[in-house]
Amino acid sequence: MRYFLECSYLGTHFIGWQKQAQGRSVQQTLEEALSTILRQSIEIAGSSRTDAGVHADQQFAHFDYEVVIADTKKLVFRLNNLLPFDLAVNGIYPVAEDAHSRFEATHRRYEYRIIHQKSPFFKTEAYLFRPDLDIATMNEAAKILLHHTDFESFSKVHTGVKTFLCDIVQAEWQQKAGTLVFTVQANRFLRGMVRALVGTLLEVGTGKKTVADFERIILDRNRKSAGPQAPAHGLFLVKVGYPEGLWEE
Amino acid sequence: MRYFLECSYLGTHFIGWQKQAQGRSVQQTLEEALSTILRQSIEIAGSSRTDAGVHADQQFAHFDYEVVIADTKKLVFRLNNLLPFDLAVNGIYPVAEDAHSRFEATHRRYEYRIIHQKSPFFKTEAYLFRPDLDIATMNEAAKILLHHTDFESFSKVHTGVKTFLCDIVQAEWQQKAGTLVFTVQANRFLRGMVRALVGTLLEVGTGKKTVADFERIILDRNRKSAGPQAPAHGLFLVKVGYPEGLWEE
Repeated sequence: MRYFLECSYLGTHFIGWQKQAQGRSVQQTLEEALSTILRQSIEIAGSSRTDAGVHADQQFAHFDYEVVIADTKKLVFRLNNLLPFDLAVNGIYPVAEDAHSRFEATHRRYEYRIIHQKSPFFKTEAYLFRPDLDIATMNEAAKILLHHTDFESFSKVHTGVKTFLCDIVQAEWQQKAGTLVFTVQANRFLRGMVRALVGTLLEVGTGKKTVADFERIILDRNRKSAGPQAPAHGLFLVKVGYPEGLWEE
Repeated sequence: MRYFLECSYLGTHFIGWQKQAQGRSVQQTLEEALSTILRQSIEIAGSSRTDAGVHADQQFAHFDYEVVIADTKKLVFRLNNLLPFDLAVNGIYPVAEDAHSRFEATHRRYEYRIIHQKSPFFKTEAYLFRPDLDIATMNEAAKILLHHTDFESFSKVHTGVKTFLCDIVQAEWQQKAGTLVFTVQANRFLRGMVRALVGTLLEVGTGKKTVADFERIILDRNRKSAGPQAPAHGLFLVKVGYPEGLWEE
């Protein structure tokens, strides 16, 4: 039987989603808890590989387990008791044998959160950026993203992907309860893409780059044209979308 | 010269607002930072004495300092660099010599935040309460608070206050982004009052007490009639209000 697992985590104390030889990854922490409770070695595959320090409000993974899990809610409860405070499982759903958490996902939504002054509540959950920002101009630039499809300029180099094509359907900056939030949704994202977009849009916001510069950067298809990447700790994976009916709620 | 100081803090690692013989208080941490930067012993008086573990989005205090502070923004910046991550100063305002942060305050607003399932983002900033709650009935009970003025039933005993009269102008439960929030505003609050109100309203929400019970508890004027106090870590002081014109923004 194949199962989807829905989870959320505070990225601060993780080396990222992906299991590595050294360090505490979200993937390995989940695999160890599942293996302990299900009493067999469980491996999981995630929908999106978030970097070290990046948070997730909603992330998905899938795993295979021979047995039919009669009470998934009880398993969620037991997992949460076993898992550390910074990682929570929010649901486990039986799916078709060939359903893949990464390939089946139709869209991902990220948020990048910025605070303008020190806050005791967001030390590791928002980027403290003090300079004044022209948000209207940043939104003018962000809107341009919806009219392009190749985002090589915002991708880490040597990632081995076949194409740099992404279909961005939302890209906007909004003030939300004292926080400035950049929301961006697409079918897929390239490695380091959201943080490079944010770093470049911040340069537009401070006047270091114009809206025309921003469009030229996209057309350049060269990572060196874009701005620096914004720090990881402001970034949240907030939603991974799947076709309806992939599992029953 | 007298100054008002506006601040916010994560209460988790503090023994509360008030300075005590032992332990890390918000008051003492602020006094030490002010004394270091202003190079003389500064004492501050707060508007509200929050308990250990209770957070503040907005808290005020006042202090006296002989010198006219020419650049209050620079002082705020220097204080925030010196203060630990869980305490931030948001403003410093010159006021009249007799302006008192506690007596001048016209109202306080608190929020109590509840989550129903484990969240990596709210471990110390919301109360994890799993049972189902009847929010409509809790709001029916909460509304009764607006029609009473003596809240001795929800006050810690032996606090030495002269009256138990409070003028509650708002008391309601609302769902906000996955969190259940109780907002309550009054001219003043008694010691332990919000946490006792929440603990009792949760008993109404689970059906342990009725709305009629709740009104009887108010009329009893006896702390023993009310429910247990809800844990400190769900409570936020979110606003302290003053008459307009007390300082210039």
